[in-house]
Amino acid sequence: MHVIDCLQYCNWSEKIFQQMREGGVDAVHVTIAYHENFREMVANVEQWNRWFERYPELIFQGRTGDDVRRARREGRTAIFFGFQNPSPIEDDIGLVEICHTLGARFMQLTYNNQSLLATGCYEEEDTGLTRMGRTVVAEMNRVGLVVDMSHSAERSTLEAIEFSTRPIAITHANPAFWHPARRNKSDEVLRALAESGGMLGFSLYPHHLKDKSDCTLDGFCEMIARTAEMMGPERIGIGTDLCQDQPDSIVEWMRVGRWTKEVDYGEGSAANAGFPPMPEWFTDNRHFGNVADGLAAQGFAAAEIEGIMGENWLAFFDAGFGVANG
Amino acid sequence: MHVIDCLQYCNWSEKIFQQMREGGVDAVHVTIAYHENFREMVANVEQWNRWFERYPELIFQGRTGDDVRRARREGRTAIFFGFQNPSPIEDDIGLVEICHTLGARFMQLTYNNQSLLATGCYEEEDTGLTRMGRTVVAEMNRVGLVVDMSHSAERSTLEAIEFSTRPIAITHANPAFWHPARRNKSDEVLRALAESGGMLGFSLYPHHLKDKSDCTLDGFCEMIARTAEMMGPERIGIGTDLCQDQPDSIVEWMRVGRWTKEVDYGEGSAANAGFPPMPEWFTDNRHFGNVADGLAAQGFAAAEIEGIMGENWLAFFDAGFGVANG
Repeated sequence: MHVIDCLQYCNWSEKIFQQMREGGVDAVHVTIAYHENFREMVANVEQWNRWFERYPELIFQGRTGDDVRRARREGRTAIFFGFQNPSPIEDDIGLVEICHTLGARFMQLTYNNQSLLATGCYEEEDTGLTRMGRTVVAEMNRVGLVVDMSHSAERSTLEAIEFSTRPIAITHANPAFWHPARRNKSDEVLRALAESGGMLGFSLYPHHLKDKSDCTLDGFCEMIARTAEMMGPERIGIGTDLCQDQPDSIVEWMRVGRWTKEVDYGEGSAANAGFPPMPEWFTDNRHFGNVADGLAAQGFAAAEIEGIMGENWLAFFDAGFGVANG
Repeated sequence: MHVIDCLQYCNWSEKIFQQMREGGVDAVHVTIAYHENFREMVANVEQWNRWFERYPELIFQGRTGDDVRRARREGRTAIFFGFQNPSPIEDDIGLVEICHTLGARFMQLTYNNQSLLATGCYEEEDTGLTRMGRTVVAEMNRVGLVVDMSHSAERSTLEAIEFSTRPIAITHANPAFWHPARRNKSDEVLRALAESGGMLGFSLYPHHLKDKSDCTLDGFCEMIARTAEMMGPERIGIGTDLCQDQPDSIVEWMRVGRWTKEVDYGEGSAANAGFPPMPEWFTDNRHFGNVADGLAAQGFAAAEIEGIMGENWLAFFDAGFGVANG
């Protein structure tokens, strides 16, 4: 079995890379841009290159599905880059291929706000894919950069699923039927995603969970079982949104970047502005076994559990990260 | 036999790519930066990506020696990127690996002027490798970005040969014993280059030639024979410096960039400020056969001719472009 977490944004350290190994995590999709422009994103790649150079026995950069298999063979964790915002491509479609060459494998068309490409989930009006959005999705399809709509609004998400010629992903969100957070997804989105061959990664970020930090493992895994009935057990995986060891200043920056001088609480509130505590059964990379156990308790078959814990993402990586028809 | 030209900077067009095919040229090292900063160099990669997308039957991006073999098999030309100045890495050592990831395989430590790394051949004082120069050479050695000293001054070049743990290249220059141009290289440099396993690419740019545009094929090939006696026939290849179809405004920009408001004539003069005409026996990529014929007329053995026309560069590419000890 391969274990893949399709979204983390930790305050990276040797300790966390070591915990990935202790947890048997073969691959992690890490966010390397929230609001960064191209050059700032490149500086983040440079930082990752230093970690790869410093901790080669723990991590290396992943570019293909085969790198996940290599990670398992070699007892290391493959790190895949992604953007939660299209800010790194600025207004330049040529940067899509450049970013793919640098290793980017997922790019959200929006974070919470309107972008040059589509509408984020916190806007009042959702106008769907923009003119540039359509050209960029076509270019992402060509080079093998996966469209991620985790933070995007409903219409934009449905249009991305429809317009993209290759399956897209929602790397980290949960169904709205279980917990109606603004970031969680409607039945219509989930069905369209599944029908198009896309993937949903279940989030463990407390704002996306029923009962938030008090969410139980049983409740979480029961939700997965209900989603599997709707989407099929091959169209789902894990995308924890783990933000381990980050100071609260980071979630503030994630929400406001440089776009406002005001405070924006996003999924939080004035009374609860920082990172919420993770559920006690999942606080770091050593706890993926708890999720697998919870799935078994729900009656999932062994092959289904393997699929949800990583094999489904691995098949998606195999199909999604290369050039079209390549 | 593989044919490799280790330096061109043409005004690229389908016509020129087609001429590469007509001339049986398997690989070309093309300059993608003279004065460009990082972001400007990336824009040049974007332009190349569009050519690769538009003319896939003629060209593709080369990254390894095996791509030269693939080019020969598939009847295409592999294009390798290089910089004639370290300006794309700015003052950031992390950009060395980023540039290598984007495909850069050669980087001159200087163009004609002092750089952050070393001294160019037009400076009055040559202080050798700078502090940053030594750290960057070590990083280039680590990732497989080849040091190129074609435009650098004497002491800097000798220090680069000495300090670099992997063989370096002078991709496009000729021996000063034949034509004492400022850019041509001393016997001491050529001997040190050969002893360290480095490579010299013979230039066909008229300012580097005896009798300039009137240089004869015989004279050029006789010079190669004399250099082969000094360096060994495995340490030499071709680096034409072909600048086909470029307007004279380009050679002006190559010389002055943004560093001066004055006119600098470089290797030219006020009376001869533009691109000089190429020798009639080598005006474009269809004429490599003339050079091979000229080498045969000098008495080179068939295997030596194959080496000079491409196999020597290919062996150097194989050894030089990957990670150290990788």
